Amino acid sequence: MPRIDLNCDMGESFGAWSMGNDRDVLEHVDSANIACGFHAGDAGTMRRTVEAAHARGVSIGAHPGFPDLGGFGRRPMALGPDEVYDDVLYQVGALAGIARAQGARLAHVKAHGALYNMAAKDAALADAIASAVRDFDGSLILYGLAGSELIGAAARAGIRAASEVFADRSYQDDGTLTPRKQPGAMIEDVEQAIVQVRRMVLEGVVRSIAGKDVAVRADTLCIHGDQPGAVAFAKRIREELAREGVALGPIAAL
Amino acid sequence: MPRIDLNCDMGESFGAWSMGNDRDVLEHVDSANIACGFHAGDAGTMRRTVEAAHARGVSIGAHPGFPDLGGFGRRPMALGPDEVYDDVLYQVGALAGIARAQGARLAHVKAHGALYNMAAKDAALADAIASAVRDFDGSLILYGLAGSELIGAAARAGIRAASEVFADRSYQDDGTLTPRKQPGAMIEDVEQAIVQVRRMVLEGVVRSIAGKDVAVRADTLCIHGDQPGAVAFAKRIREELAREGVALGPIAAL
Amino acid sequence: MPRIDLNCDMGESFGAWSMGNDRDVLEHVDSANIACGFHAGDAGTMRRTVEAAHARGVSIGAHPGFPDLGGFGRRPMALGPDEVYDDVLYQVGALAGIARAQGARLAHVKAHGALYNMAAKDAALADAIASAVRDFDGSLILYGLAGSELIGAAARAGIRAASEVFADRSYQDDGTLTPRKQPGAMIEDVEQAIVQVRRMVLEGVVRSIAGKDVAVRADTLCIHGDQPGAVAFAKRIREELAREGVALGPIAAL
Amino acid sequence: MPRIDLNCDMGESFGAWSMGNDRDVLEHVDSANIACGFHAGDAGTMRRTVEAAHARGVSIGAHPGFPDLGGFGRRPMALGPDEVYDDVLYQVGALAGIARAQGARLAHVKAHGALYNMAAKDAALADAIASAVRDFDGSLILYGLAGSELIGAAARAGIRAASEVFADRSYQDDGTLTPRKQPGAMIEDVEQAIVQVRRMVLEGVVRSIAGKDVAVRADTLCIHGDQPGAVAFAKRIREELAREGVALGPIAAL
Repeated sequence: MPRIDLNCDMGESFGAWSMGNDRDVLEHVDSANIACGFHAGDAGTMRRTVEAAHARGVSIGAHPGFPDLGGFGRRPMALGPDEVYDDVLYQVGALAGIARAQGARLAHVKAHGALYNMAAKDAALADAIASAVRDFDGSLILYGLAGSELIGAAARAGIRAASEVFADRSYQDDGTLTPRKQPGAMIEDVEQAIVQVRRMVLEGVVRSIAGKDVAVRADTLCIHGDQPGAVAFAKRIREELAREGVALGPIAAL
Repeated sequence: MPRIDLNCDMGESFGAWSMGNDRDVLEHVDSANIACGFHAGDAGTMRRTVEAAHARGVSIGAHPGFPDLGGFGRRPMALGPDEVYDDVLYQVGALAGIARAQGARLAHVKAHGALYNMAAKDAALADAIASAVRDFDGSLILYGLAGSELIGAAARAGIRAASEVFADRSYQDDGTLTPRKQPGAMIEDVEQAIVQVRRMVLEGVVRSIAGKDVAVRADTLCIHGDQPGAVAFAKRIREELAREGVALGPIAAL
Repeated sequence: MPRIDLNCDMGESFGAWSMGNDRDVLEHVDSANIACGFHAGDAGTMRRTVEAAHARGVSIGAHPGFPDLGGFGRRPMALGPDEVYDDVLYQVGALAGIARAQGARLAHVKAHGALYNMAAKDAALADAIASAVRDFDGSLILYGLAGSELIGAAARAGIRAASEVFADRSYQDDGTLTPRKQPGAMIEDVEQAIVQVRRMVLEGVVRSIAGKDVAVRADTLCIHGDQPGAVAFAKRIREELAREGVALGPIAAL
Repeated sequence: MPRIDLNCDMGESFGAWSMGNDRDVLEHVDSANIACGFHAGDAGTMRRTVEAAHARGVSIGAHPGFPDLGGFGRRPMALGPDEVYDDVLYQVGALAGIARAQGARLAHVKAHGALYNMAAKDAALADAIASAVRDFDGSLILYGLAGSELIGAAARAGIRAASEVFADRSYQDDGTLTPRKQPGAMIEDVEQAIVQVRRMVLEGVVRSIAGKDVAVRADTLCIHGDQPGAVAFAKRIREELAREGVALGPIAAL
């Protein structure tokens, strides 16, 4: 039976600054990737986000990023693998501690922003992330871009991976995402996004921007919670997929 | 049989900046309080310090502080109990994650600098710290100034406390430390410091600055690793106490 | 002729996080207090805020705060006068540099949050702020709570002060603000706030919370831009005061 | 008459952490590049460093870097030109404010670490730095790697440039530095370093690592103050060059 997990980045407020619509989004996703204080989030926001996710039965994951609060972890930084290993371990431990105090536990780790994108293409960085996750808790699932170095790194580290796909990004013939700066990179039409998700989940293929059907593995779908229609889209895609008999739920439970 | 634990703050380097003489001090102490990135320390320094302590069988503890890198956590900050709870939990979790990745585990928590001093006198802050420690792991030992609110808070939280004493600070008639700004606050004479420690450990009393013998509980002695004679002093005090038949070792092992 | 300056804190966004409604508020105030990167604001936000204020002829001031991004500069911190002097000078210089690059210049400095409140009562901190402002540019005006240590410090430093009053806070018999935690501290009724401002500006008195008329000097009125009705209130108070013949404009121009 | 300026990075302590040997180095250099709080330095360190340099008549310059305290500004970060412009302007303004309070003024700006290296090869970043410097004060001199994009950017911005050369780095046939990771990149032999400097200053050429004489412009020589023999080397090179009739002093004074 086809199955999918809907994940969303959360807990991205910081101090007096608020971001996102976590409460509403939590009603419609299976897994929450919670910022850990380096690119966003702070200890209080982390606790409140864990509480909210735990109360709704949403699976909790760490969302470690680069130490760049001013750039929201979106600016590539040339950290070496050792630095990435240490920074990921620190952030995962911090969130796990907060979860543990509430009787909750982490199920997965998904790197954020520039760290995610760089590790998707750089085996050494991907291995650093996967090793940190494995060394902390070998039962955690590493989320990574489908077909990327992150998936291979999880295998090398001996931990489970979840291949992530996107509804609002177009794919190229080689299965990678069309770079944001290129025309057609973003899929803004909701119906087209729905079609793309359905095919990825049900058929394991995506129609590339050049019109070719490309194989893609879809374990988890990223919902961009900071976008206007996020809640409506998450609700809609759940209904569509459920109607097709797709099982929806956290990876660990599927 | 009388017993004592020698503890020392460690891992206080940050990025390109180095502080302390951890390698040498580690040879002569029983417990290491490792900075967790808020007032000092970074993820890499924490990992290396945990490695070094673990390799020598020195007991590992978290040393959480105020979020004030520029002030080294020594400037009082008016954080509320909720903020202190969250910040302590975050820091303890981060260090525990790093330890776990090495097959090590935390044995204790000791607050740093202004957080330690404020919580020693403020029951609400002390309770916040003790609750965070208990909620993370009820088997951890909370280090706190002997006779202070921290000791009471540990009892209220249902966790073990270790009463900390100082060799280089004089005490007042009520068992509190003489404030640093007052004359005679610091004990600079090594022989006098040795005598003070011996009496605290062997007799459970300290001669106050006014000349009165005051009861004090001594579970752990703080070694100030950043001071010139720290290594020599730690070595000397171990020898003196061992000669008297005092058992030296980590609290958890005693 | 009675006169008043309407000032508002601005530029309090940071990185990916947005705060406030600066564009709209700028249409209705005379002076902008721009955050300088320690408690809020970043270099890009500062530049854009200076541009917007300068384009509208709104007077530009620096709004230095404690180095506490996570607490938005609202948590008292025990910095010594030397540290306050240095931190204020740094922040004022940074904003002045950004203004200078646009052909604009600073007219005033207003401390933020806990720094403002602490310096209002602590002569040494107030002197540190006033000295930093004077040493940077003796023609700058120091904004401070009417009747507070900040006003005295400006006099001692030989620089101009502007006595700040509040529309939405009640006063005590001694001319100080009712502490926020006490009942009646906040004036939520707009009409009552208008009456308070009119009397402060036109008569130089404020009716205390105990019902006594107390003398107060009103050079500048604080508009809280982050509150829902801020724009409407600023517009309304301008109209009311203009109707009474009050001159409205930046302190430096009055 | 041949002339040269000896410059050195300074003020790289931060909070409780000390770095460098500024007092001693100041006796033997002409220009101080003072860290501005982003990669190193803090407001107090900046003030003390400006005081020390000013007292000795050493020319004061800003040394802005990436916002990466944990990485000491040595890790490349993908900031856009607008971000670099803003961050440089902020840092230069902050230091200029501190200097102004002491009756001193800035003479130059030299980017730090990864920002310096990236801008040397990236015209857009170099232009961002040069524009920020020019917009702040068109009389400032921009220090940059000889032959690099920074020198061209200064020309495009209409400000003065100073071509920087290194005593302890070897050059390639195209006049660029041998990358640090390649063998022979560092010149560790003092006599060889002296010869290289003499030829650069007196003849305007450098013998490349491949043995070819390459033209190089030498306006200012970088002294690495954090290296063991820095003071002795600076002293020696001054003597050697003075003996040859080379004028030594700050660029602005030559």
